[in-house]
Amino acid sequence: MKVYEYQGFPNPARIRITLAELGMTDEVEFITIDVPKGEHKQPDFVKKNPFPAVPVLELDDGTTLAECTAITEYLDHLGDGPTALTGKTAKQRAITHMMQRRAESALLDAVAAYFHHATPGLGPNVEEFQSKEWGMHQRDKAVKGMAYFDGVLKSQPFIAGDEFSMADITAITGLNFADAVGIDTPEDCTNLLAWRKKVSERPSVAG
Amino acid sequence: MKVYEYQGFPNPARIRITLAELGMTDEVEFITIDVPKGEHKQPDFVKKNPFPAVPVLELDDGTTLAECTAITEYLDHLGDGPTALTGKTAKQRAITHMMQRRAESALLDAVAAYFHHATPGLGPNVEEFQSKEWGMHQRDKAVKGMAYFDGVLKSQPFIAGDEFSMADITAITGLNFADAVGIDTPEDCTNLLAWRKKVSERPSVAG
Repeated sequence: MKVYEYQGFPNPARIRITLAELGMTDEVEFITIDVPKGEHKQPDFVKKNPFPAVPVLELDDGTTLAECTAITEYLDHLGDGPTALTGKTAKQRAITHMMQRRAESALLDAVAAYFHHATPGLGPNVEEFQSKEWGMHQRDKAVKGMAYFDGVLKSQPFIAGDEFSMADITAITGLNFADAVGIDTPEDCTNLLAWRKKVSERPSVAG
Repeated sequence: MKVYEYQGFPNPARIRITLAELGMTDEVEFITIDVPKGEHKQPDFVKKNPFPAVPVLELDDGTTLAECTAITEYLDHLGDGPTALTGKTAKQRAITHMMQRRAESALLDAVAAYFHHATPGLGPNVEEFQSKEWGMHQRDKAVKGMAYFDGVLKSQPFIAGDEFSMADITAITGLNFADAVGIDTPEDCTNLLAWRKKVSERPSVAG
């Protein structure tokens, strides 16, 4: 399998963490796509992902998979059955997918929208449309998202409950991206900050 | 189980179709939340879904599940194993989740963003923030999304491949929502229109 990515970027980081959690990092060849130079928008890559973005997982039969939850579903179903990363029971799967989606929309995607719309983002060659008012609104959403997850973590150790899951991966990636673009985690989010410290120490996240 | 919803709205429609496909409609009690009047933002409902929106599935143990893909994951795992709705193999699951996400972001969510941002939406009591430039950009995205799915359907009968899945449910709901807000499916999207006719005749969709 091959992973097309740009190391250090948020969504590729999610799949790096997922692979490490599953002990599969060595089974994958990583190929760099130079996103800041717009390589993801070149025809060769658009064939692999018509909604040009990294990461993309290419299977040995040539099938290309995009979207982090989809890639995670694939990797987590290669063994005997899904793990807590996507959920072992119907209820755990539902809660994990729900919390993952919330971590995306209220944190990671909101931070990304701020970056791409209210800052120079990846520069004029890559950012084809920018809406500063939308970006600033999404910044506010991200800060509210941090407060929401702080509340969630008051009564449970991980974002989706008792076990580390893809929801934690999305959330920690969202917080790291927020740091990088200057959106600090509020100091009164003590549960979120404690969770962050704990999760950042996992080998899959610490790297 | 209870489903909190507002009949006729796009996301509740997704779960109505899912339940019908699984033959589970009669196992659920439907409870109306008056979204146009803002009932989804009242404290009693926010306890069920802190990101106020319908549908919400409430289990008999009181657990509340939001986000359509999460609810679909739950319902599709109540039987002997997942069906083609979410995917039976690792690869089918990945492709289904990928295409579902594309149907959301490039179609249903884009249409919703146009409706909520570039039209009066649900009115000033419900729409707290509107960005017309964002809404119009998302309208363009939805039309491009239609062209993308038209290309996908040139070589396969359903959005995620050979079988009807949650990706089709998201896409048909997106097209119906687009109609309702005045975004017509382009006439040259002949594959998409043929698929739409076929899918609209399914008992789960026709109602």
